[in-house]
Amino acid sequence: MLSKNRIKFIRSLQLKKFRDEAKLFVLEGEKMVLELVLQQAECIDCIYVTSDFSVETLQNEKISFEVISDKDLHQISGLKTPNKALALCKMPDFQPETINFALVLDGIQDPGNMGTLIRLADWYGVKHIICSENTVDCFNPKVVQATMGSLFRVNISYCELNSFLKNQKLPVYGALLEGENIYKKTLEPTGLLVLGNEGNGISAAVQAHITHPITIPKIGMAESLNVSVAGAILLSEFFRGVA
Amino acid sequence: MLSKNRIKFIRSLQLKKFRDEAKLFVLEGEKMVLELVLQQAECIDCIYVTSDFSVETLQNEKISFEVISDKDLHQISGLKTPNKALALCKMPDFQPETINFALVLDGIQDPGNMGTLIRLADWYGVKHIICSENTVDCFNPKVVQATMGSLFRVNISYCELNSFLKNQKLPVYGALLEGENIYKKTLEPTGLLVLGNEGNGISAAVQAHITHPITIPKIGMAESLNVSVAGAILLSEFFRGVA
Repeated sequence: MLSKNRIKFIRSLQLKKFRDEAKLFVLEGEKMVLELVLQQAECIDCIYVTSDFSVETLQNEKISFEVISDKDLHQISGLKTPNKALALCKMPDFQPETINFALVLDGIQDPGNMGTLIRLADWYGVKHIICSENTVDCFNPKVVQATMGSLFRVNISYCELNSFLKNQKLPVYGALLEGENIYKKTLEPTGLLVLGNEGNGISAAVQAHITHPITIPKIGMAESLNVSVAGAILLSEFFRGVA
Repeated sequence: MLSKNRIKFIRSLQLKKFRDEAKLFVLEGEKMVLELVLQQAECIDCIYVTSDFSVETLQNEKISFEVISDKDLHQISGLKTPNKALALCKMPDFQPETINFALVLDGIQDPGNMGTLIRLADWYGVKHIICSENTVDCFNPKVVQATMGSLFRVNISYCELNSFLKNQKLPVYGALLEGENIYKKTLEPTGLLVLGNEGNGISAAVQAHITHPITIPKIGMAESLNVSVAGAILLSEFFRGVA
C-alpha cells in the first residue's frame, strides 16, 4: 500500500515544476511499461503494477516492482482509465554534441503534436530537437504517452531560440508562405529545420534567422496543414536521398 | 430563446444515427462559422450566435442567424467551452465520379487523425476518400472541428471495402512492412492509396487486394509512425512530381 506522501509526490509529477525538481517523469500503461523495460531499463526509477499485470517480463529482466491496489493506481495515475502499470522514469541526461541536423520547435503547444514530432524525428534518425522556452514540456504526461518510447532516443533541449540561432553557422530552413518549392530543390540533411506554433506559425524574432525559406506547394484548397503533418512532409524531403 | 425540443434535436446530432436521419451535422466556433459563411454558404441550414459574436460578415453576406443566450449555446454545444457560434450544416451530396486517385481508409478510429487526413487530401487536391464501414464518421463533431473546412471539398463515402476493391482496375497501394522503398520508385498519382487502423494497420481482407505494397524506410529507431503522418509522407511522394 502506498503512503499518502508517496501518492502526493507521484501526483505532483503531473506538473512541470515538480518534475524538474525531482528529475523524474511518469509513463503509464502495460504496453508502454513493458517496452520501457525491454528498451530503456536504465531509465527506470520504480514501477507500480496492479495484480492483473503479467510480471514475467519484469522477473526475466530482474526489474524490481511493487504490486499496488487498483485504488492506489487510480490515485497516482493521470489517466481517466489507468491501465495496470505506472513507471517513474529518470529524465535522460542530454549530452551537448555537435549538431549536423536538428528540428527546431518554436512554440508548439499541443502535446499530441509534440509527441508525434518526437516519434517522427526518431523515425528519420534525427538526434536533436531544440525547443523555444514556450514549447510544451517533453515530459508532460500526454507528450510521454504520444512518443511511444522515442523520447529516450532523441536529445531534446529548451533554450531562448533567438540567442541560439544568432550563433549558428548551419543553414536555417523554415516553412514560410513565400519560400522555395520543396519539390523543386534537393534538400540535404545538414542544417536546422524550424517548425512554428499551431496557430501563429514561426514567430517574427525566429523568422529573422531563417536563411532558407521553403514551402510545401498546395495543389488543392485546404487552408493549412497540421504542424506534425507539415513536419513529416519536410523531414521526408530532407531524408529521401539517404533512406 | 430555443425551445426544449429544438435543443434536444440539436444535441441529438452529436450521434451518427440522428445526423444520418436529419442529413445535418454541427460545426462550432466563431472562426469556423465565419469561414463556412465565406466559403460554403450553400451548406448552411441555420446559424446560432451569442450576443458577443461579430455579425457584420453574416449581415454582409445576407445570411440569416438567430441570437441566443450563453446558456442556450452551452445546451446545444458539444464542446466544453463553446465559442460564440454553432451552425447546422447540410451534408454535402457526394456525386459518383470517375476516380483517378483516392485515399482508402480501412478502420481509422481517431477523429483527430480522420480530420487531419481530410485536410491533407484537400491540400494535395485529392478529390475522393473511400472509407470502410468501421471508419469513424466524417460528420462526427470532433472530425468536423479538425478538418477546418476541407470536409466540404472532398467526396467522402463509406462502403464495404472488400467488394469495392474487388472490382477495381486501378493499382492499389498500401503501406506494408515488406513493401518497396517509396524513395526508390516514382509514384504517380493514379490509383488507390490504402491507410490502415491506428493499432492494427490494414486488415487482412483488404491487404489481399493490394497490388503495390510500399514502405516508408526507417533510418532511426521509432517503432511506428502515426497514421496521419504516414499518410502525409506518402501523399507527398505521390504528388511531388506534379506540385
